[in-house]
Amino acid sequence: MTLPARLGGVIPPVCTPLTPEGEVDTGSLTRLVDHLAGAGVDGLFVLGSTSEAAFLTDPQRRTVVETVTGHLGGALPVLAGAIDMTTPRVIEHARSALAAGADGIVATAPFYTRPGPAEIDRHFRLLAERTGAPLFAYDLPSAVHTKPGAELILRLAADGVLAGLKDSSEDQLGLRTVITAARARPAIRDFTILTGSESFVDTALLIGADGVVPGLGNVDPHGYVRLVRLCAAGDWQQARAEQERLLGLFAMVRVAASGIGAFKAALRLRGIIDHATIAEPQQPLTEDEVEQVAKLLTAAGLL
Amino acid sequence: MTLPARLGGVIPPVCTPLTPEGEVDTGSLTRLVDHLAGAGVDGLFVLGSTSEAAFLTDPQRRTVVETVTGHLGGALPVLAGAIDMTTPRVIEHARSALAAGADGIVATAPFYTRPGPAEIDRHFRLLAERTGAPLFAYDLPSAVHTKPGAELILRLAADGVLAGLKDSSEDQLGLRTVITAARARPAIRDFTILTGSESFVDTALLIGADGVVPGLGNVDPHGYVRLVRLCAAGDWQQARAEQERLLGLFAMVRVAASGIGAFKAALRLRGIIDHATIAEPQQPLTEDEVEQVAKLLTAAGLL
Amino acid sequence: MTLPARLGGVIPPVCTPLTPEGEVDTGSLTRLVDHLAGAGVDGLFVLGSTSEAAFLTDPQRRTVVETVTGHLGGALPVLAGAIDMTTPRVIEHARSALAAGADGIVATAPFYTRPGPAEIDRHFRLLAERTGAPLFAYDLPSAVHTKPGAELILRLAADGVLAGLKDSSEDQLGLRTVITAARARPAIRDFTILTGSESFVDTALLIGADGVVPGLGNVDPHGYVRLVRLCAAGDWQQARAEQERLLGLFAMVRVAASGIGAFKAALRLRGIIDHATIAEPQQPLTEDEVEQVAKLLTAAGLL
Amino acid sequence: MTLPARLGGVIPPVCTPLTPEGEVDTGSLTRLVDHLAGAGVDGLFVLGSTSEAAFLTDPQRRTVVETVTGHLGGALPVLAGAIDMTTPRVIEHARSALAAGADGIVATAPFYTRPGPAEIDRHFRLLAERTGAPLFAYDLPSAVHTKPGAELILRLAADGVLAGLKDSSEDQLGLRTVITAARARPAIRDFTILTGSESFVDTALLIGADGVVPGLGNVDPHGYVRLVRLCAAGDWQQARAEQERLLGLFAMVRVAASGIGAFKAALRLRGIIDHATIAEPQQPLTEDEVEQVAKLLTAAGLL
Repeated sequence: MTLPARLGGVIPPVCTPLTPEGEVDTGSLTRLVDHLAGAGVDGLFVLGSTSEAAFLTDPQRRTVVETVTGHLGGALPVLAGAIDMTTPRVIEHARSALAAGADGIVATAPFYTRPGPAEIDRHFRLLAERTGAPLFAYDLPSAVHTKPGAELILRLAADGVLAGLKDSSEDQLGLRTVITAARARPAIRDFTILTGSESFVDTALLIGADGVVPGLGNVDPHGYVRLVRLCAAGDWQQARAEQERLLGLFAMVRVAASGIGAFKAALRLRGIIDHATIAEPQQPLTEDEVEQVAKLLTAAGLL
Repeated sequence: MTLPARLGGVIPPVCTPLTPEGEVDTGSLTRLVDHLAGAGVDGLFVLGSTSEAAFLTDPQRRTVVETVTGHLGGALPVLAGAIDMTTPRVIEHARSALAAGADGIVATAPFYTRPGPAEIDRHFRLLAERTGAPLFAYDLPSAVHTKPGAELILRLAADGVLAGLKDSSEDQLGLRTVITAARARPAIRDFTILTGSESFVDTALLIGADGVVPGLGNVDPHGYVRLVRLCAAGDWQQARAEQERLLGLFAMVRVAASGIGAFKAALRLRGIIDHATIAEPQQPLTEDEVEQVAKLLTAAGLL
Repeated sequence: MTLPARLGGVIPPVCTPLTPEGEVDTGSLTRLVDHLAGAGVDGLFVLGSTSEAAFLTDPQRRTVVETVTGHLGGALPVLAGAIDMTTPRVIEHARSALAAGADGIVATAPFYTRPGPAEIDRHFRLLAERTGAPLFAYDLPSAVHTKPGAELILRLAADGVLAGLKDSSEDQLGLRTVITAARARPAIRDFTILTGSESFVDTALLIGADGVVPGLGNVDPHGYVRLVRLCAAGDWQQARAEQERLLGLFAMVRVAASGIGAFKAALRLRGIIDHATIAEPQQPLTEDEVEQVAKLLTAAGLL
Repeated sequence: MTLPARLGGVIPPVCTPLTPEGEVDTGSLTRLVDHLAGAGVDGLFVLGSTSEAAFLTDPQRRTVVETVTGHLGGALPVLAGAIDMTTPRVIEHARSALAAGADGIVATAPFYTRPGPAEIDRHFRLLAERTGAPLFAYDLPSAVHTKPGAELILRLAADGVLAGLKDSSEDQLGLRTVITAARARPAIRDFTILTGSESFVDTALLIGADGVVPGLGNVDPHGYVRLVRLCAAGDWQQARAEQERLLGLFAMVRVAASGIGAFKAALRLRGIIDHATIAEPQQPLTEDEVEQVAKLLTAAGLL
C-alpha cells in the first residue's frame, strides 16, 4: 500500500514472537498482528528495537516482514526497521524489507563507528537515494550514542530526504523545536513526527506530534487507541488519566532486566502469543518476575 | 594453522583496500598482506574496526578472509573480527570467517542493545560453545559503550571461554589488573593479552602485555616490529624513542575526520594499495589533508 | 514570611546584575525584583544557576539575599540556592541565606565528589536536620552529574525531609513518576513540584506540576504569568501558542556561549538593569550577538 | 620556600585527619606530615581531592595549610589545592592558602558551570595573573567533567601561565602528547608534569613524567619513594615488581564506597592518625571493611 501523506495515531513496534528454539513463531506473530489491527491501530512498525531486530538474523528479519505484510494484505501501512551499523549494510536490509512488502523504512544514524554530523547527513541522503522508499529517521541515542539534531532533521525534511521522524530520544527540546519549525513551514507540513515515548503521548500530541510508536502498545493497544482519540478530541484531563493508567502498566519494564521480556510475558499471559522466549543473550524472566507482570496486568484490568 | 598457545608481538589490524566503487580490492589487499608479512609481523587481524568491518557487507567480509588466508597459506596466524550487535548475528559471522580459513575469532560485547554484565558473560560463553574456535574478547568501549571489566574477563579466561583479550579501552587500570592477575595464576598463564593502543606499546609490554594490534602498523610495520624487539631486549630508552617517533606519525589520525582514511592515504602514497577509497558514509580526505599525511610520512622517513 | 503549603505558579530564578567591576549591582537588582513582582509572579528563587551563584563569593551571595528580601519585605516568598560541593559547605551557605531572610533552601546533590545513592540520601537528611528550613531538592544532572531518582525523592518527601523538588533534569519519565506518585499519596500531597524547563510549562502543568522556575522569566515574566493562567484555565491550545512564542524567544540562549549573558543583554536592552556584565571567566557577548538578542526581543514584541 | 624549577619525585596528596566531630585533627595531621617527610617524599600536596578539600569549610581549609606549613618550616615544598567552581571563588581560596604559607596553587577547570575551552583558558590566565603564584593545572575529568586538552595545556605552559600539570585523567594519549611536546621545546623544559595515577608510576616515569601524587602514598610512602628511585636508576623490572605490590595494596579503594575512608582506616591501623573519620555525607567503613583493609596491609608487609 502507499503510505498516507502524513502518518499518525498509534503505530506499535511489533514484538517478534520466538519459538523456544529461537526461531520466528509465525503463528503467534499473525495472532499478534490481528490483536493490534483489531484494536484499531493506524499502522505497524516491524523490525524495530522492541521487535528485537538487533538479535534477528537476516533470514529471520525477512520472515518477519513477509509474514506481517502477507497477513495484512495492505490493510495497514507497515514500516520496517533497517537496523545496522553503516550505510552499505543498512541498504541491504532496506532492500530486503521493501522486497518483502514493507511500505517505508526506519533507520538510525550509523553506530559503532562514531560518525560526525556530515557523515550522518550523508548516510540518510544515500539511504533515500538508493532505496527510493519513504525514509523515517529513528532517533534513539540510548542505542546509537549520537543524535541527528533538530537542524539536520529539518534540513533533510526540507530536501525531501526524510518522510518522517521517530523520536525515541529524551531530548524534549529537540523534539519540540522540530515540531514547531515543521508546522510553521508549508514545504514540510507533511513531515510525519512520531514519538517513541509511551508515557508521554498526551504531552507529545498536545505539542503537535502526529502519533506514537508505543512498545507497551503490544500489550494494551486498546489503551493507546483510546488515549490518542481523547487527545484528538481535546479532552486533556481524560487523556491524562488514561496515560497515567498506562504509566502504571509500563512499570513492567522495570520488573526484569529485559523490558521486551516483560512485554512478551504479558502477551503470553494474555493468550496472544505461545512463548515468552526472548533472543540470546538476554536473560529470560524468572517465575517471580512473570508473577509481577501478571499483577500489573490485573491492576490495569487486562487479565 | 593452529594458533600458538600464547600469541604475541605485532598483529596489525589489516586495512581493507576498496575500489573506487566500494568493492574489496583483492589485488591491493594481497600486496598489503605481503608488506606486513615482509616486515616480520607475528600475525594478522582482519575484519576489525580498522578494517572497516562495520561497513562491509557479508559477502565482502567473506572475500576479505578468503583472500588473506588463501594468500598466506598458513604462513601467519589470522584472527578475524565477527562484528555485530548480538549473539545470533555474531555467530553467523564467526562461522563464515572460520569456514573461510580464520584461525580465531575476535568479538565485542553486544552493542546497540545495552546489555548488562550477565548478558555479556552469556554472550561470550555462547560464542565459544557454538563456534568451537579460539575466542578473543575485543574491549572497545568507544564503539560498544560497555566494558566487560577485569573480573569478568578473568573468570571467562579461567573457565576456558576466552583464549585472549584485545584491549582497546582507555582503562589502564583494568588492563593492568587483568595482566597482573593472569600472570599470577598458573591456570591462565596462556591467556593472550594484546593492546590496541599503538602509542603505548612500550608501556604495555613493560607491564606484561603479549603484543600489540596497531592500526598504524599498516603504514609502518617495520617500526612496530623494531619497537617490540627493543622492548623484548629490555632496551626501554630506545623503545621509548621509537615509540615517540611512531607517536609523531600517529598524528595523521587527527588530520581528517577519518583516521582510517589517513592510513589508507598513507598506504597509497607509499605505493602499497591502489586507491585510498573509504567506505560510505565516511568523508574522503581532501587534497590538503592528503598533503599533510604526506608530510608526516616524510618526517618519519617513510616517503 | 512563611512559605505556602504548596508553592506554585511562576517563580523566576533571579539574575544577579553585576557592575562592570564584577560586584553585585544592588540598584539594578531591586529594579529587576520590581519588574518581576509587578508582572505577578508567585515567588522568587535567588542564588540558583541562572543567578550565577556558582560565580559569586560568599559576601556577594549574602548581599543578594539581603537586597532581595529587604526590598520585598515579605511581599513574596523567596527561595535561596545553597550551591556547593558537599554537606558541610552547603550548610554554611544555607545558614547564611536563612539569616539574610530567605524562606526556603534549594540544594543539589553533592558534586565533584561522585556520591553514591546512600550519600545523596544522607546529604539531604543532614541538610534538613541542621538548617531546620523548608528544603527543595534541585535536580540538575547537567551540572551535578548524578540524579537523585524518583524513588529517593519520594522517600525523602514521605519522611518530611524535602518540602519540594525543582526538576531541571531532562528525565521526563522521572518527573512524571514523581508527580503521579506524589498526587496519589495523601501523606505527601503538599509536596511542591516545580519544573525548571521554560519550554515545557504547558506540558508540565498538564501532567500535574505546580509551577515553573523559568530563567527566561527574567526577560518576559508577563509571558510566563499569562502561560500559567491559561493552563490553570484549561485553555491548552492558547497555552501552547504562548509557549511556542516563548520558545522562539528562548532561542536567545543559543546566540552566544552564555545563555545567562543573553538574558542579561536582554534585560539591559529592555532598560531593567544597567550592565550586562557576566561573571568571570564567562565570555561577554559580542556586539553582533547583542544585536541578535535585540532582534528576538523585537520579534517577541518586547522591544 | 621557593619551588624548585621542576618539581618531581613523590608528592603525596595529604589526607586531612578529622576528629569524630568533623573538625581538623591537627595533632594527627602533623604526625602524618612527619610520617611522609620521614619516608623521603619530595613535597606535599594539601587540599586536593584525597584531602577531602571539597568537604572542608573555608576556616578548616586554612587550618590545614597553616598546620602543615607551620610544622614543616620550609623543609619541603607545599602545594595547595584551591578547589571551587569558578574563577572568583578559586581566587579567594588561592589567596587564603598563599597567605597561610603554600608555595604553589593547584586548580581545576571551572566545574558545575559547563565551561567551554575559551572559558577554561581564561580561567587559568586570570588565576595566574591575580594570585602571582606558581599555578598547576589539575586535570581530573571524573570530578570536573571537562578536560583542558593537550594543546591548551601546552599553550598555557608556553605563555608562562602554568608552572605544571597534575594529570589525574585516564587520557594516556593526552598525557604522553603533553610530555613529548614539553620535552622537545626548550622554552618549556621546566614545565612540571606529575601523574595522579598511583598504579602507573613506572610507566609514567618511563615516558618522561617528573613525579607522582599518589593518594596511596599516605599509607605507604616508603613504597613510592623506592619505586621512584628504581625508575630513576633504570631498573624497570624491579620497578614493575614494586608497582605491582602497590597495585595489590591499592585494592583497598574498592573495599568500601569511599577510597579515602580506606586510606584513613589504614593510617589509623598503622597508628599514624587517631581517627578514621571521613567527612559528611560519606559513609564510614563498616568493621568488616576495616578488617579487609587490615588484611591488605598485612599482605603488603605494613602491619
